[in-house]
Amino acid sequence: MSNTAGQVIRCKAAVAWEAGKPLVVEEVEVAPPQKMEVRLRILVTSLCHTDVYFWEAKGQTPLFPRIFGHEAGGIVESVGEGVTDLQPGDHVLPIFTGECKDCRHCKSEESNMCDLLRINTDRGAMLHDGRTRFSKNGQPIYHFLGTSTFSEYTVVHVGCVAKINPQAPLDKVCVLSCGISTGLGATLNVAKPTNGSTVAIFGLGAVGLAAAEGARISGASRIIGVDLNANRFNDARKFGVTEFVNPKDYDKPVQQVIAEMTDGGVDRSVECTGNASAMISAFECVHDGWGVAVLVGVPNKDDAFKTHPVNLLNERTLKGTFFGNYKPRSDIPGVVEKYMKKELELEKFITHEVPFSEINKAFDYMLRGESLRCIIRMEA
Amino acid sequence: MSNTAGQVIRCKAAVAWEAGKPLVVEEVEVAPPQKMEVRLRILVTSLCHTDVYFWEAKGQTPLFPRIFGHEAGGIVESVGEGVTDLQPGDHVLPIFTGECKDCRHCKSEESNMCDLLRINTDRGAMLHDGRTRFSKNGQPIYHFLGTSTFSEYTVVHVGCVAKINPQAPLDKVCVLSCGISTGLGATLNVAKPTNGSTVAIFGLGAVGLAAAEGARISGASRIIGVDLNANRFNDARKFGVTEFVNPKDYDKPVQQVIAEMTDGGVDRSVECTGNASAMISAFECVHDGWGVAVLVGVPNKDDAFKTHPVNLLNERTLKGTFFGNYKPRSDIPGVVEKYMKKELELEKFITHEVPFSEINKAFDYMLRGESLRCIIRMEA
Ligand SMILES: NC(=O)c1ccc[n+]([C@@H]2O[C@H](COP(=O)([O-])OP(=O)(O)OC[C@H]3O[C@@H](n4cnc5c(N)ncnc54)[C@H](O)[C@@H]3O)[C@@H](O)[C@H]2O)c1
Ligand SMILES: NC(=O)c1ccc[n+]([C@@H]2O[C@H](COP(=O)([O-])OP(=O)(O)OC[C@H]3O[C@@H](n4cnc5c(N)ncnc54)[C@H](O)[C@@H]3O)[C@@H](O)[C@H]2O)c1
Ligand SMILES: [Zn+2]
Ligand SMILES: [Zn+2]
Ligand SMILES: [Zn+2]
Ligand SMILES: [Zn+2]
Repeated sequence: MSNTAGQVIRCKAAVAWEAGKPLVVEEVEVAPPQKMEVRLRILVTSLCHTDVYFWEAKGQTPLFPRIFGHEAGGIVESVGEGVTDLQPGDHVLPIFTGECKDCRHCKSEESNMCDLLRINTDRGAMLHDGRTRFSKNGQPIYHFLGTSTFSEYTVVHVGCVAKINPQAPLDKVCVLSCGISTGLGATLNVAKPTNGSTVAIFGLGAVGLAAAEGARISGASRIIGVDLNANRFNDARKFGVTEFVNPKDYDKPVQQVIAEMTDGGVDRSVECTGNASAMISAFECVHDGWGVAVLVGVPNKDDAFKTHPVNLLNERTLKGTFFGNYKPRSDIPGVVEKYMKKELELEKFITHEVPFSEINKAFDYMLRGESLRCIIRMEA
Repeated sequence: MSNTAGQVIRCKAAVAWEAGKPLVVEEVEVAPPQKMEVRLRILVTSLCHTDVYFWEAKGQTPLFPRIFGHEAGGIVESVGEGVTDLQPGDHVLPIFTGECKDCRHCKSEESNMCDLLRINTDRGAMLHDGRTRFSKNGQPIYHFLGTSTFSEYTVVHVGCVAKINPQAPLDKVCVLSCGISTGLGATLNVAKPTNGSTVAIFGLGAVGLAAAEGARISGASRIIGVDLNANRFNDARKFGVTEFVNPKDYDKPVQQVIAEMTDGGVDRSVECTGNASAMISAFECVHDGWGVAVLVGVPNKDDAFKTHPVNLLNERTLKGTFFGNYKPRSDIPGVVEKYMKKELELEKFITHEVPFSEINKAFDYMLRGESLRCIIRMEA
């Protein structure tokens, strides 16, 4: 057991005090893990667009002060009562959607939406007692997605922790704890393109490019990347994207542009933007008869998905996924192994790196659409 | 060859001269079949709600005068140039959506939406020359769905004709040419409930009850029937429906009622109403994680399907189907055989019967929600 076990740890965290205002890296207190919880030492974290949305809190429920962050790699510092699967020293990825292994979802082969531990963007406290483990001078600081990895130490439910190969470099595989697994799984586990098929990817951020990577691995013959930011097209060829469409270049709906490029529509599409109108385009651009569209982007609270029912009757399929349908504890160690066996390249997703003290730069890079993933090192 | 081959046939047809006005049974001329067409002698036809919608022409493109009808059984009278698959005397079901056997859809295992012959509710003439085969004193009378079975003789594209076992009683198997195959296939081919699953059926007309029959055949443990017309509940037990929900009995959305009855939602739902808000309820009542909703009802021109994208992200699947994904020429002869082998009961769908001269009664029965299928005999 580490000598900090059972004690409050004082450490640095990047606290979001107000929506849209720069995070402040300062000292906070992290309480010991309670029943079925573990306390992790975070070594490296990265920024995903979902953090940015809830930090901006436009059209989302605001909850501040809060510690964001959900893509990370770390080491177990101590474990709470009842935890038998993990022990101090284990290398882990905290994951925003958990797996209790006991509910109908965890027992189903199709779902990863654990009744107990599924993603909950509104909850700011721990399940066990409804309280936060973070505080500053006695003032509670809210959690985010049950992970709050923008902190040197964090407390997470054991069901939200994937134990991985200790040989795996945490500063690379940390991106598997959200975005890359999400995009890859959306294609491999949900859209399931067959060899030779055509695939459209909406949004060429890290999630979308991971979805493109999944299409390439599946043997897609054409991978059409759609983004409003033409800079995204530069590097996308590395991820298998073969053609590009910028909706701004056309005065007709992008679904029509794609239908014309592909004799009626693509076989599969994966939406990775979070924009409701892109979701509609991604659905309407798949071929009737057999097309499948998969939604991944996180929408705003008041967004609506709207289409004429005939687009459905024409034998299109519409699905959505969280975390690419991967079960975090059961499946993610295997995805890490894919990286270790060089079946999956992660380096190309990591475009930037900053020390923890400069975490706000990671937000700037993402907001300007410059970065795919920016790695934030805690020990800088 | 019959002695009428190559000649104009004068026969009785029920002509719709105006939207919503009673059909008039009168003598019309039926021209000989042209290239890739066949002329059928219709022995028995039945009424489907799709006929009623386009006859009412509320929110649909009106096209009059027109001969409606698309569920029927008949015998080939003569064939046009290039027809080799069929010959005079063959027993057939005309089908509103065809199969050319040559396009990408016909060659795909997933689709039945033939590029050439798929359902087209706006077209009122034959593909070959854009002209009608029906006329009255030289005035053309439009076709409907390429079938126009409310006539003693009709001309149909060879790709819209399923050749069936000549032993099969046409006054029973005629209902397989649309509604019953549609509902049955929507469940068996598209929703695919597994043994023991829960299924909700929206709309307990013939299509919905055939969908329920499919759920029963699949071994569903609970089949929840939803209809605004409580009379529909009387006979529905015969079709495997185990529970009933009338949305009028509740002051909350029916999707919520169903979620409460089923610990979060049904495994599968099949919508057979044509009502846009029922489509939304049918989607939202399936369980997150694994639920699949299938739309069958034909919507109005301006209808919209609308839902919050999170209902999709929560791992629900939404699909639609025409004709239960059956390929008319390849699959329907086999469905007829199921009836012949008593694996499928059709008698219980046939609640009424009228002679051709009283065809308007069939419309009354359907509009009052009294009939499932009303058989109309041509030789009365
Ligand atoms: N479902 C899940 O489990 C899950 C997990 C992680 C991320 N996400 C979501 O996936 C989305 C992508 O995440 P990311 O980290 O790759 O973000 P990102 O900002 O790096 O990439 C998004 C891309 O979409 C483009 N875009 C925005 N609107 C568009 C439109 N209308 N048409 C075309 N392109 C458009 C942007 O220019 C950008 O390049 C976000 O909505 C994020 O919240 C979902
Ligand atoms: N997709 C296809 O290939 C295909 C083929 C045939 C029929 N259809 C369509 O299927 C639908 C059903 O056809 P049918 O012949 O069984 O019609 P029907 O009129 O016999 O049955 C429809 C039933 O739906 C009920 N209903 C209407 N609105 C409802 C609502 N909001 N909530 C619950 N119940 C509601 C009615 O009371 C009625 O009992 C129609 O829309 C028809 O056009 C589609
Ligand atoms: Zn994320
Ligand atoms: Zn669970
Ligand atoms: Zn019909
Ligand atoms: Zn075809």
